Amino acid sequence: MLCMTVDIKLKKEIDNSYKITIDSLKQITLETKVAIVTNPKVAGLHLAYLLAQIEAPEVYIITVPDGETYKNMDSLNHILERMFDHRFNRNSTLIAFGGGVIGDMTGFAASIYQRGIDFIQIPTTLLSQVDASVGGKTGINNRFGKNLIGAFHQPRAVYIDPYFLTTLQEREFSAGIAEIIKMAVTFDKEFFKWLEESDLYNQDTIKIAIEKSVKTKAWVVAQDEKERGLRAALNYGHTFGHVIENETNYTKYLHGESVAIGMVMADDLACELGIMSTDEALRVKKLLERYALPVSYDIADVELFYDAFFLDKKSSDTKVMFIIPEHIGGVVMRDDIEASIVKKVLSRYKDV
Amino acid sequence: MLCMTVDIKLKKEIDNSYKITIDSLKQITLETKVAIVTNPKVAGLHLAYLLAQIEAPEVYIITVPDGETYKNMDSLNHILERMFDHRFNRNSTLIAFGGGVIGDMTGFAASIYQRGIDFIQIPTTLLSQVDASVGGKTGINNRFGKNLIGAFHQPRAVYIDPYFLTTLQEREFSAGIAEIIKMAVTFDKEFFKWLEESDLYNQDTIKIAIEKSVKTKAWVVAQDEKERGLRAALNYGHTFGHVIENETNYTKYLHGESVAIGMVMADDLACELGIMSTDEALRVKKLLERYALPVSYDIADVELFYDAFFLDKKSSDTKVMFIIPEHIGGVVMRDDIEASIVKKVLSRYKDV
Repeated sequence: MLCMTVDIKLKKEIDNSYKITIDSLKQITLETKVAIVTNPKVAGLHLAYLLAQIEAPEVYIITVPDGETYKNMDSLNHILERMFDHRFNRNSTLIAFGGGVIGDMTGFAASIYQRGIDFIQIPTTLLSQVDASVGGKTGINNRFGKNLIGAFHQPRAVYIDPYFLTTLQEREFSAGIAEIIKMAVTFDKEFFKWLEESDLYNQDTIKIAIEKSVKTKAWVVAQDEKERGLRAALNYGHTFGHVIENETNYTKYLHGESVAIGMVMADDLACELGIMSTDEALRVKKLLERYALPVSYDIADVELFYDAFFLDKKSSDTKVMFIIPEHIGGVVMRDDIEASIVKKVLSRYKDV
Repeated sequence: MLCMTVDIKLKKEIDNSYKITIDSLKQITLETKVAIVTNPKVAGLHLAYLLAQIEAPEVYIITVPDGETYKNMDSLNHILERMFDHRFNRNSTLIAFGGGVIGDMTGFAASIYQRGIDFIQIPTTLLSQVDASVGGKTGINNRFGKNLIGAFHQPRAVYIDPYFLTTLQEREFSAGIAEIIKMAVTFDKEFFKWLEESDLYNQDTIKIAIEKSVKTKAWVVAQDEKERGLRAALNYGHTFGHVIENETNYTKYLHGESVAIGMVMADDLACELGIMSTDEALRVKKLLERYALPVSYDIADVELFYDAFFLDKKSSDTKVMFIIPEHIGGVVMRDDIEASIVKKVLSRYKDV
């Protein structure tokens, strides 16, 4: 009887490094077919501005409807079909031009088209500029939850142009600030203090906040690209936030808004466990409220809400992973919190 | 004006090594939720045999219809939906139990479920044992062609049990031999000679051929996982074969059969260019015919056939990449072959 074992060795260096530029757009020259993936709203406002800077042999525009509800398999298929129609090959390039929804879907399409092609992020919302466009997380939602289908696929480059923020609605702007505040609570006490003392509606101030957030994110991703440890800390507020978004069908709240509520819930849990002071929780809440971010939510069914945690990518079969602050500037990951304590905190959000 | 650049450095070692075992199945112990993805035919023949060897806290069975026509987005969605139904998380494991179709789809599902989970290959056809199960190429077909949507996602382990070959139909067995012959023509003159002198219907002989093919494949993949160079040589016969499969809707020929025709076409092209001798081309053809593999095809429209090459993942906007033998045991990659010469060769396959 023949019997053997072959060891396949693939250990090797992969260079996925890329540059993030924060500045007004300069000419981007590509020697490949290019498709800009965007939505009608962003295209109407800014496509001409972008096209003036793109130099490539063939440039196509692929549009998908605006909004988180369209971050689904249908839109993904639409993008892929257009790429096939235009005979894209492995050397072609996608440009994600829009907010986080566009960035996540475009990145995912790039990652699975012919087993992976290049893409470039040009984020137009504050939220995607400070968070989603950096780090290579791509994906789509489905009826079970957010970003449950996707891939890690790093962009070739990220161009962050603060000019796009001038056309953002106030609600969208605030949603981006929620992720900036998240970054500060998670990793940087001094940054949080600076945020308390600053006015992010000021153009120069917001640029500094973007830079600070992007640098922090880049540092975290460099340590832990595939979210096996440190990077999970960036999901502070998201464990709760994702359930809220899913329960409200991605229509009632913007992503950053549900994260704002989620941070308040995570702080409540941390206070309940006695590991965060109520004073510090209040400071977080006040900073969120200053930018008109929602900080409460009416949970219809606590059991259902809790059950949905198990679909979170950080959870296991039997344990839910919570990311909660010990203090402003430092979070801990805990998968040992009793369900009864979590449900007690959740029940405070019933009938508010 | 604030203007800055952040460099995100991700260069690092990734260990994707894994073990390929060629032997009768021994107990496989997993500490995670497991789903075996298979089709009704394989399940009917061999599922009990496999289940007797699997030790895991929860084991689910996910079936998809048998055949290349079902290697599509619908089947992929079906697999993903069942995984969500069973509350799979990042620690769960998929087992691909079947031929290349099952392996490719299961691997792709594993690669995009929650941005990537583990999977194990247990190939049951000769073709998947000698080729598809090793190397981490995953994907699905669509109306534009084969494997056009997919990912590189390495299995955690591959178990090749020659016992499964005893229930293969002769046509399926031959289709696997086509890939063994491909491996020999591509890389190994001595192996080809050995094949000419051997009877692969003999059980001990076929095991040696499997071992030789798997070792060669493993060596190639270790050099070039992402198919940036050497690995593309394994696509000898596939450039033509994929077009044939697509034109015949994946129903008339098994994958290995269309690759057999594709090898003959590639050899014809090599002879036409004067880089391969007609003697050697004849030896390849004879070996294929010995295992009742098809070696001709009726091309309805040469222009359409040629046009379809541009969707091949190795082709660019303007150039088609052909992999053709210089001699048995050595192929070259050529993207500079005049369209007229290729079409001249193709036209010989009209009205045959």
